[in-house]
Amino acid sequence: MFKLIKNEKTARRGEFVTPHGTFQTPCFMNVATAGAIKGGVSSFDLKDIKCQVMLCNTYHLHVRTGDKIIKELGGIHSLTKWDGPILTDSGGFQVFSLAKLRNIKEEGVYFSSHIDGRKIFMGPEESMQIQSNLGSTIAMAFDECIENPAPYDYVKNSIGRTTRWLERCKKEMDKLNSLPDTINKKQMLFGINQGSTYSDLRIQHMKDIAKLDLDGYAIGGLAVGETADEMYRIIEDIEPYMPKDKIRYLMGVGTPVNILESVKRGVDLFDCVMPSRNARHGHLFTKSGIININNQKYQKDLAPIDKECNCPVCKSFSRAYLRHLKKAEEMLYMRLAVMHNLYFYNNLMEEIRNALDNGEFETYYNNNIDILGKRI
Amino acid sequence: MFKLIKNEKTARRGEFVTPHGTFQTPCFMNVATAGAIKGGVSSFDLKDIKCQVMLCNTYHLHVRTGDKIIKELGGIHSLTKWDGPILTDSGGFQVFSLAKLRNIKEEGVYFSSHIDGRKIFMGPEESMQIQSNLGSTIAMAFDECIENPAPYDYVKNSIGRTTRWLERCKKEMDKLNSLPDTINKKQMLFGINQGSTYSDLRIQHMKDIAKLDLDGYAIGGLAVGETADEMYRIIEDIEPYMPKDKIRYLMGVGTPVNILESVKRGVDLFDCVMPSRNARHGHLFTKSGIININNQKYQKDLAPIDKECNCPVCKSFSRAYLRHLKKAEEMLYMRLAVMHNLYFYNNLMEEIRNALDNGEFETYYNNNIDILGKRI
Repeated sequence: MFKLIKNEKTARRGEFVTPHGTFQTPCFMNVATAGAIKGGVSSFDLKDIKCQVMLCNTYHLHVRTGDKIIKELGGIHSLTKWDGPILTDSGGFQVFSLAKLRNIKEEGVYFSSHIDGRKIFMGPEESMQIQSNLGSTIAMAFDECIENPAPYDYVKNSIGRTTRWLERCKKEMDKLNSLPDTINKKQMLFGINQGSTYSDLRIQHMKDIAKLDLDGYAIGGLAVGETADEMYRIIEDIEPYMPKDKIRYLMGVGTPVNILESVKRGVDLFDCVMPSRNARHGHLFTKSGIININNQKYQKDLAPIDKECNCPVCKSFSRAYLRHLKKAEEMLYMRLAVMHNLYFYNNLMEEIRNALDNGEFETYYNNNIDILGKRI
Repeated sequence: MFKLIKNEKTARRGEFVTPHGTFQTPCFMNVATAGAIKGGVSSFDLKDIKCQVMLCNTYHLHVRTGDKIIKELGGIHSLTKWDGPILTDSGGFQVFSLAKLRNIKEEGVYFSSHIDGRKIFMGPEESMQIQSNLGSTIAMAFDECIENPAPYDYVKNSIGRTTRWLERCKKEMDKLNSLPDTINKKQMLFGINQGSTYSDLRIQHMKDIAKLDLDGYAIGGLAVGETADEMYRIIEDIEPYMPKDKIRYLMGVGTPVNILESVKRGVDLFDCVMPSRNARHGHLFTKSGIININNQKYQKDLAPIDKECNCPVCKSFSRAYLRHLKKAEEMLYMRLAVMHNLYFYNNLMEEIRNALDNGEFETYYNNNIDILGKRI
């Protein structure tokens, strides 16, 4: 259940109560694809880097090791030993981005596994069953994620189907939550707003799904081809139609700048693979901008990645060591870089929350928006 | 400085005092090739898994990031933040195993870098200079490591040169330790016994190098092609000629069985990549034998890797999770598997020390020698 604590203009400070504990918003979820964070970061490490919510990918867990086996093992919490909230996506995004030969019908999607090519069918009921087997805290509705740009008529048709799929998701989840052997009988369901870059379709769809009184509402189908400015415009257009008393989740977004801009526009919850992806490429976040640890100038630099950072990596290791590990292709580089970048994101959210608590969000925004995206 | 605490027949319980702290023997050194343990294990993690001594590879650090740069950064302790003893090998083993087009002369070895093919020369003086730049606690002498089997005449000629190289190593180290800008002015030097599988050559060489009164003596050129029984026989043959008051290091050995057999025959110090290499292949050590985590039977096994193990991994995670992570190709698998396997080795050494302390080594040996190598 979402509790709005305070507002500063459109920006919101809140908290979300779940069967696996309460988390504070705005919040960034840390992506643990197959039940593990990239870079050898465990659920215990997540506690040290201020993570509040873990996000796992339903599709990956479905194909390896399989949701039915994970159910037998007591669910994803039991497997990973993360005892806080876990959000699972619907599997839809991976079906649309990874799978070959997909075929979308009213009943769901037929596709071939990207691992072994075997035929799989996934529809709203299947997605809910898989997420129920995993026993996550929050399940995401099964929707069609459309790449931008997309033809108006296709989008209009697609959001109608996504609404019908959402109704089926809700019905299936209600049923699953009432079964005696369900792991998490209080599993929550978030609906997903779609509509590509068309404001009228976005708004119409938002109105339609708001009626279903779900536990939260996500904005999907953004950061998939359109510009950042278009994304901000869409958020601004649909925000007035999003329920005030429900948590709002912007899926798969984004850079620290994207996040700050979106909090300003009323978003509460985020996730993105950027902290680990940037780490892999040597891009590390600091309070003064983004550094590229591959740069020769860090070869003899005994300073931490970020002097202002209190993460376990910055408290112990130097830029010179990180650069050395990366050049030597040591796995320890990935671990340290991912831990630092995730801490940066989690800490950024904490700073944003503190600013909102103190009624100083606008000042915080003005002081940081230019620095956060700077490459130094 | 080595202090022999007690004996049980040929097996020895001792301690070794170094400028970076005292470690207890018998001891297994944990291999951190380029200043990092495989699997994203940091120097801080090593404290949690009972590691006493870190071993770094001179050759790898010489080619990446370079020993001169590491010297400018304050040495390998400063870089890795490991504050305990560090042993560096001479670089010779990598020169002989990795390098292409090597050419051995009296002055040293000419070879091509395995990274970029550039011509490198390494002789005793160069090896000492590199290890002095790294500032390790213990430097290893530069020797020729010969694969077994090898022709008698070749070996006889080679050990003569290795003795002459050792004399040059000692002279160079004395000089380096007296220079004002040397990082570790108390760097220790271990000599290395060679002689392939020929007992008379092994014994003659041991007698020759014992005269030099070094800080420790290693047995090199074993576990490079000969059988385990041959290796044990050679250790038995040379043991009476190894100084009683000096630490004894069996290089690159080995399995838990090899270690227990070698402690029995008077060896104090070990290193091997087996804990991480076996981890990579799914082979995990337990008190009941070696398990293969790839095995289908562990898919739903909620028990820890080893019920009797107190390592951070066994205290938290299940065999089912480890197997899942391995199948999903998550980096976290390597971290957890390596940490467990290293803990197993470090803990085995602690158990051996306790047995020696209690005068129960023979019992410990009899109770464990058959189980340690068993695949279950």
